[in-house]
Parts: sequence; C-alpha cells; structure tokens
Amino acid sequence: MAVSVLDMSVSLDGFIRLHEWAFGPGAPEEVLGEMNAMGAVLAGRRTVEQVDHWGGDHHGSGIRIFVPSTRPPAPHVANYPLVTYVHDGIASAMAQAKAAAGDRHVHVIGADTEQRALAAGVLDEVHIHQIPVLFGRGRRLFDVLPSRIELDIVRVVNTPEATHIRYRVRT
Amino acid sequence: MAVSVLDMSVSLDGFIRLHEWAFGPGAPEEVLGEMNAMGAVLAGRRTVEQVDHWGGDHHGSGIRIFVPSTRPPAPHVANYPLVTYVHDGIASAMAQAKAAAGDRHVHVIGADTEQRALAAGVLDEVHIHQIPVLFGRGRRLFDVLPSRIELDIVRVVNTPEATHIRYRVRT
Repeated sequence: MAVSVLDMSVSLDGFIRLHEWAFGPGAPEEVLGEMNAMGAVLAGRRTVEQVDHWGGDHHGSGIRIFVPSTRPPAPHVANYPLVTYVHDGIASAMAQAKAAAGDRHVHVIGADTEQRALAAGVLDEVHIHQIPVLFGRGRRLFDVLPSRIELDIVRVVNTPEATHIRYRVRT
Repeated sequence: MAVSVLDMSVSLDGFIRLHEWAFGPGAPEEVLGEMNAMGAVLAGRRTVEQVDHWGGDHHGSGIRIFVPSTRPPAPHVANYPLVTYVHDGIASAMAQAKAAAGDRHVHVIGADTEQRALAAGVLDEVHIHQIPVLFGRGRRLFDVLPSRIELDIVRVVNTPEATHIRYRVRT
C-alpha cells in the first residue's frame, strides 16, 4: 500500500529551503532512495499552475499527478494525460493517488495541500531535512494548524549538511 | 572559557515546549549533563520580572543572573545579591556572565534576549530538543531575524521522545 509523504528541506527556524544537500557528495543513499521512491504526486492547484503542471510530466518521471480542486482545470490540461483533477475532496484525491502509486510513495506538494492533507488525516509521513542555518525570513513550512498532531520518529540520519528525520503521523 | 547557550525544546513546527522529555526514563545522560552545566544566566528583563528573578536564585542553583536593561531594576532587586542589571548593552552583559560562569555555560533565557544575542554575535551554541509533535499554535522560538546565521552541527542524540541537536553558531 502506498504511503503519502511530505518531504521538505527546512532551516532550523522553519523556513522552506531547496534540497541543496541532495546534490553534495555526502548525501545519504538511504534518504535519496526515499525521495526517489515516488509513485504519484498529489499537488495543490496553485502549485501546479505556477509551473504549468511541469509541462504535464513531473520532472520527466512519468508518474501521475492528482490535483484536488473544486473548479475544472484550464482547457489545455486535457493535453496532459498524466494530470487528473479531482473534484470530490482531498481524501478522494489521495485514495486515487495511492492506487496509482502502487507500493511507492505519494509525494504531497504545496503548503496549502500539505496542511489540508494533515487536517484530513490522509498524510502518513513527514520527511524533514533540517539544514543547519537560521534563515531569518521566508515561507514557513508549518503554519498554524487547527489541532495538535502527534508524530513518531521512524529514523534519523545525520550528516554535517542536514539532519534527516522521518516521522510517521500517529493515527 | 564559558560558552553561551540557548537551550530549548520545540515542536517540529517551531513552537516552544516544556522540557518534558527530560523527566522521562529515556532522557540521555549526555544531554542532561549539558543542560546542567550552567554557570550563569543571561536573561531578559521581561522574563526575569515575570518570575520575580526566581526569588533571587535561579531554581536554587546559586549561580549569578545577568539582566541587560537600559532602565534601573525595581528597588527590591537590591535584596537579590545574585542578580546584576547591566546597562551598557548585551555584549557587556554577556562578557560579565561568561566571567562569572568560568568554564561552565551561560544559559541565555527569553525569546527577545536570545534574538538580540544572536544578532550581536554573542551566542555561541543553540541546543534544540525537537519533539515529535506538530503543536499547531503557540510562541515560536525563532522569529524573523535581520540576517541569515550559519550553524554547524556539533552532535545529534536520538531518542523516541526527542531529537537533540547541538549547533555551534558560525562566526
């Protein structure tokens, strides 16, 4: 069964960072492997429209992209066979994404969609790559949530470039 | 030479937490030892006034307490021989606290004072105990900073209750 994952690099003060550590020689194989275990994408409408649905193919991966949205997609999205807009809520979008992902991960993308997935109880894991920097400003990964959410630490991998912590969301 | 330390427990989403992990059976000795290596306190005026200077003695430790403030203390503070108000800036207050701490830590307390110590370049280490929970709301440990601050990871200790990361502030 697919696992849905939020996978983000953040500064110690909680601002979203690029995965710079992943391109260095010290990037741990185990962590890179988890990042590449993607079998489908669940992404917010604002996110996908900003990058025009990655041209219809998420970084050339050939995996399906699910977009929860109450409104119909722009007409040209009909030319993107890997992109599916789901109109009956995030739980339904996640179920379809998990079915498409098989035994691989559903990668959840977009701050708003992540928060909604957490609130709806359909986010299984949070993978955080914590970078040793106080960035001081930017976009926070976690905004205010409607309720407290307990996590379990699955594993920690330490490198000088990042502390990689894999959490499971407690149900 | 004393090292100045900000030592805080935070949720994954960056909200200040109590050191609950420290009272459990799995609390790591190494981390507890670092917390107890306190030789002086540097605390903000608002923080110390909220708790009336811990009655003049920080949790019965007998160590000196330094308070950077431009205004004179309340009159009854004259009865607290361990408490010193420093009127010529946070760098001077830190120098006095380090001299008093000897080879032990200066424990920096109070969100505003921590930020000022960071900005003034007089905070040496940040010890974070990251609790596996998304708390959703509360007081953030790190607010917006005037500039980016690089850190080095000194060590990580993993337990199911917390990820204990010790950072050195890069100068």
